[in-house]
Amino acid sequence: MMNTFLDQDFLLNTSVAKELFHNTASKCPIIDYHCHISPKEIYENKKYDNMTQLWLGGDHYKWRLMRAAGIPEKSITGDGGDYDKFLNWAKVLNRAIGNPLHHWSHMELQRYFGYTGVLNEHTAIEVWTLCNQMLRQDHFGARGLIEQSNVELICTTDDPVDSLKWHQKLSMDKTFKTRVLPAWRPDNVLNIEKEGFLAYLQQLEEAANQRISTFDELKTALKKRMDHFKRHQCKLSDHGLSKVTYAAAEDAEIERIFSERLKGSQLTQLEVTQYQSALMLFFAGFYTENGWSMQLHYGCRRNNNKTMLLKIGPDTGFDCIDDGTSSGDLAMFLGALEEKGILPKTIIYSLDPNDNAAIDSVCGCFQNDETVCKIQHGSAWWFNDHFKGMADHLKTLASIGYLAGFIGMLTDSRSFLSFSRHEYFRRILCRVIGEWVDSGMFPNDKETLKGIVEAISYKNAKNYFQF
Amino acid sequence: MMNTFLDQDFLLNTSVAKELFHNTASKCPIIDYHCHISPKEIYENKKYDNMTQLWLGGDHYKWRLMRAAGIPEKSITGDGGDYDKFLNWAKVLNRAIGNPLHHWSHMELQRYFGYTGVLNEHTAIEVWTLCNQMLRQDHFGARGLIEQSNVELICTTDDPVDSLKWHQKLSMDKTFKTRVLPAWRPDNVLNIEKEGFLAYLQQLEEAANQRISTFDELKTALKKRMDHFKRHQCKLSDHGLSKVTYAAAEDAEIERIFSERLKGSQLTQLEVTQYQSALMLFFAGFYTENGWSMQLHYGCRRNNNKTMLLKIGPDTGFDCIDDGTSSGDLAMFLGALEEKGILPKTIIYSLDPNDNAAIDSVCGCFQNDETVCKIQHGSAWWFNDHFKGMADHLKTLASIGYLAGFIGMLTDSRSFLSFSRHEYFRRILCRVIGEWVDSGMFPNDKETLKGIVEAISYKNAKNYFQF
Amino acid sequence: MMNTFLDQDFLLNTSVAKELFHNTASKCPIIDYHCHISPKEIYENKKYDNMTQLWLGGDHYKWRLMRAAGIPEKSITGDGGDYDKFLNWAKVLNRAIGNPLHHWSHMELQRYFGYTGVLNEHTAIEVWTLCNQMLRQDHFGARGLIEQSNVELICTTDDPVDSLKWHQKLSMDKTFKTRVLPAWRPDNVLNIEKEGFLAYLQQLEEAANQRISTFDELKTALKKRMDHFKRHQCKLSDHGLSKVTYAAAEDAEIERIFSERLKGSQLTQLEVTQYQSALMLFFAGFYTENGWSMQLHYGCRRNNNKTMLLKIGPDTGFDCIDDGTSSGDLAMFLGALEEKGILPKTIIYSLDPNDNAAIDSVCGCFQNDETVCKIQHGSAWWFNDHFKGMADHLKTLASIGYLAGFIGMLTDSRSFLSFSRHEYFRRILCRVIGEWVDSGMFPNDKETLKGIVEAISYKNAKNYFQF
Repeated sequence: MMNTFLDQDFLLNTSVAKELFHNTASKCPIIDYHCHISPKEIYENKKYDNMTQLWLGGDHYKWRLMRAAGIPEKSITGDGGDYDKFLNWAKVLNRAIGNPLHHWSHMELQRYFGYTGVLNEHTAIEVWTLCNQMLRQDHFGARGLIEQSNVELICTTDDPVDSLKWHQKLSMDKTFKTRVLPAWRPDNVLNIEKEGFLAYLQQLEEAANQRISTFDELKTALKKRMDHFKRHQCKLSDHGLSKVTYAAAEDAEIERIFSERLKGSQLTQLEVTQYQSALMLFFAGFYTENGWSMQLHYGCRRNNNKTMLLKIGPDTGFDCIDDGTSSGDLAMFLGALEEKGILPKTIIYSLDPNDNAAIDSVCGCFQNDETVCKIQHGSAWWFNDHFKGMADHLKTLASIGYLAGFIGMLTDSRSFLSFSRHEYFRRILCRVIGEWVDSGMFPNDKETLKGIVEAISYKNAKNYFQF
Repeated sequence: MMNTFLDQDFLLNTSVAKELFHNTASKCPIIDYHCHISPKEIYENKKYDNMTQLWLGGDHYKWRLMRAAGIPEKSITGDGGDYDKFLNWAKVLNRAIGNPLHHWSHMELQRYFGYTGVLNEHTAIEVWTLCNQMLRQDHFGARGLIEQSNVELICTTDDPVDSLKWHQKLSMDKTFKTRVLPAWRPDNVLNIEKEGFLAYLQQLEEAANQRISTFDELKTALKKRMDHFKRHQCKLSDHGLSKVTYAAAEDAEIERIFSERLKGSQLTQLEVTQYQSALMLFFAGFYTENGWSMQLHYGCRRNNNKTMLLKIGPDTGFDCIDDGTSSGDLAMFLGALEEKGILPKTIIYSLDPNDNAAIDSVCGCFQNDETVCKIQHGSAWWFNDHFKGMADHLKTLASIGYLAGFIGMLTDSRSFLSFSRHEYFRRILCRVIGEWVDSGMFPNDKETLKGIVEAISYKNAKNYFQF
Repeated sequence: MMNTFLDQDFLLNTSVAKELFHNTASKCPIIDYHCHISPKEIYENKKYDNMTQLWLGGDHYKWRLMRAAGIPEKSITGDGGDYDKFLNWAKVLNRAIGNPLHHWSHMELQRYFGYTGVLNEHTAIEVWTLCNQMLRQDHFGARGLIEQSNVELICTTDDPVDSLKWHQKLSMDKTFKTRVLPAWRPDNVLNIEKEGFLAYLQQLEEAANQRISTFDELKTALKKRMDHFKRHQCKLSDHGLSKVTYAAAEDAEIERIFSERLKGSQLTQLEVTQYQSALMLFFAGFYTENGWSMQLHYGCRRNNNKTMLLKIGPDTGFDCIDDGTSSGDLAMFLGALEEKGILPKTIIYSLDPNDNAAIDSVCGCFQNDETVCKIQHGSAWWFNDHFKGMADHLKTLASIGYLAGFIGMLTDSRSFLSFSRHEYFRRILCRVIGEWVDSGMFPNDKETLKGIVEAISYKNAKNYFQF
């Protein structure tokens, strides 16, 4: 019998999967330990005038799909009217077979707006009218959408210079129950080779109230900021690296490199790597001491289309997978930290899906009894965040590592509707597990299965990060 | 219930797939926009004395399989008798479980010869007799086979020095309805490091009636030849690259490199890349201006077995996958063209199946409203042209890109029977789509599904190339 | 209908698979042509006091899983009590969903101990008691376990200096029917850059009774040892390489490099590669002349965790996949041997599953009528030795190569219980084939199918190695 599109048993093709999802996974709160939501928008309870603002205002996944389908830029990020953009999106979406945006968008329509039909050029006006009306309602602001989604905790992504004042306000606001914690993302201070580095140092000096004329002073300033983040309950960091590399150097050499950069000299690639390695060691030391987790995101090549970069800036849909990080470099970097006793809890995300097995094998070299799966292979990321990508990730992780210890899903999103991706992930998880049980590859032991699903959906993240 | 081998519902495991294939996909004409068929053989309506000539005369896929199965070279490409070769092929084929040749060969026996049994050492004589008899019939020449296959258009693959006289004759011949267009493949002029380069330049001088003593004159000669191809309705080019690389250089430097080569000097790898990059820019400019599409084939390491190369020459089954092209190099090359405003419609084929996701992500960086899916990830090629390879390609493309805009299948073949590979592809396409619909992952909206299948099977290619 | 965990039809999801497994595959004897079992332990009929000694005494697969699950090292390799270790293993195993250890362990409990339940913290004591009791029985020593497993032949893995006296004794012992042959693994003499190299040369001098002061003398010594291995029925070699590389050099240059090393000089990476290449050429010449097969294992990065290396030594679970070998290097190495006429039967294993398709394509470049599938892509190895890894390997091999010529499974194990992995492999093989037949992708021709399954399970290995 054919399944109905996106009905209650969406993706659940065995009775075990159905039971696990409906009775266990769907009931777990969400811990969204990595996303790019603005704490200010949460605090101010941001509202949206219409679906184009909500859906197409900043989502480069959707923009890319529209460009691929031949829609003019005017109707994507340009000055086309909001309904024109929405209508074009509806046309494209209806033919986006096999693309996760098709699932995500329809899940969002169902879960938040109660619309169970299909969005296409014929229904666009009906959906537009219905949803825009609902967006005017009180509980369709940022806070309402988060509350509807049963989100227990959110970690945003924040620069060291951030005052965290919106986190502070949110923590004082007893009317909003979801915890919103900062996460430390010091890319700007690692990117010593970038043009804006010196200007950024000035911001950091101000934020830390600390002169930065040496590498040592830089560390002092950063330490102050990490303490500040810690006072605001920060529990994890995040690093966006083009590649994972490591090159050791003496302190004096790092001071020399830093001083050269302050003078405006151009650094060699080796010098850049040495500086970054030294800083990563410093960070890792703090993380280890304070129980913070370290996220590593790599394998992305950014801004490939210079014409569009000049027109509409970065993060607008012109990045791609970079397949250049070797598992050896990753193992060498983690090994260096381990040897120095400063390897923190680490979560590894590569944008290259070919890295799955190798990463799982690297993780296994650094596990110990500090916590379950101290070194984690993060959930399928960005270009891999779809049915096939997540199923492959889970199956490879299970085959090489310990799936039951996996900390599970995160949205990595800027949107208040993206929490339904946790549901999507949990359905796929229950499907994969259900297929194993149904085919006799794992015992139908309800307690064990329930425990595993609950752990991956919720409990593991809570224990791992010590929220 | 078990399915019968290769019956009418071959590969179609859902009712949706069956309906889509039988009512839509199977009815679409074939546009074979890239193959290596000889236009002379079409014009002269080449005929074959027997199945060995037809099947084993030039097909290195089959030769490789026979070698793997331990058949002596004498009975493959040597002076073994034709029936001896056929019998050996039958023996090997019967045990070639999971290999696409097993499917292709039996599809060809069914579609062209009406033989629905299995070819093995017991049936070999029966098949031999039946098929050879049919080959003597009038409509079993090149033209008849093409006509039986409902082929609307073929693009051959042609060297810049080719006179295109057979294309000319075919275009004048009103008795043959399939259009046969040339495609521009200038590998010989790009391969500046090869021994035969200077001799090739002489051929090019003659063909273009243009002296070539400078790089500038080379471009003039090539421009003349491209105009010649254009007058013969050429709409696309093809480039066989070992790797995708790009290195910019001033005009004067290119002139110097070219002049060194004319003098017989050995070039450095960088000089070769600079020359090739300059030439690719020149070609891309012409392609963009004239609406030609640019195909890039890379990731092949050729002639790995020197002993056999000396004995029976190149293209005899001794090539392998080269996994050395990084997605970064591909993105850099396309980015350089984009920045100069000369990025034509481009179709990317890598022989390394690990490149699938990365290529899909690169394509997404250069799409615009010039046409639907301006940058295409070409269909699974050569060592990937099988059930698993095509299904993986389609699913990854759908997950990361816009499958509905895909221009679909091509044969890349030298054989007049290979058109059944379009059927094979369409069955897999309908199967993949059918599974999504059947499992509730896409709505069972017949019009949309029919539109998508028709587009990928036929209409997208027609629109894309502007045939 | 849901399948029962690990019942008789485990992994067999079609009637074709069931028939092929139960009537054919399961009846074939085992040829375990590559493992790390100790011939001394076989001869002395090693016995185990309890399940912890048997299962957890030396199995780094299990140790890794326990570490990932957060078990303290004390209860893994430390001085925790044997039952404490077993109980911890039981807890972890019960949640190890999707991991091959879950299948292997339960298969071993069923096949050798008749225990059909599930091992978990509740049943641990029952399993402990039952199995330990059985271990005391006579036929639960090394010999009994091998005999129960229907093992016709075992190839161990042996250093050139090994006297092979245990092989000798075993061959004289008429009470034990399984043949136990040595295999030649000269890693120690190839690793010229390692600290212990000079000390190793002394051992080799003694074993060969041959002074080694030049590369030429080294070859003489090795030739003597290979002759010794040959007299003990050795039929294959094995090489553990970090990467496959090749660099040619004149004899004089190799002598110079070797002499430098004897003097204690540090060699460059190129010199190391040149030495290793020269030695591999020498070995390959002997292998070719004597019909030995050459196994190449590569793609492993060892000892990534220095802290643990110092604590508990190598081969304790801290290795990972190294994704650094290019298919081009592999093709170049095999091509160099082919060109010199000294390419032996070769079996290629990479730890990186991304290499599957490329390796299959490389193998196809060097096949000939010396034997069926002279160049083999070895069975999914180590981190890939699981359901997904083996199924992917088989499907890719079938798509690109000639599956029917595959020499099949080996355990690569140190354990006398691991023979059930042959059963695991055969079930997966029958499943994959069954699915093809059931879906109409291959004819349901019982004789052909039976022949293919029997060949891959048993006959191909026997013919290939000429045992």
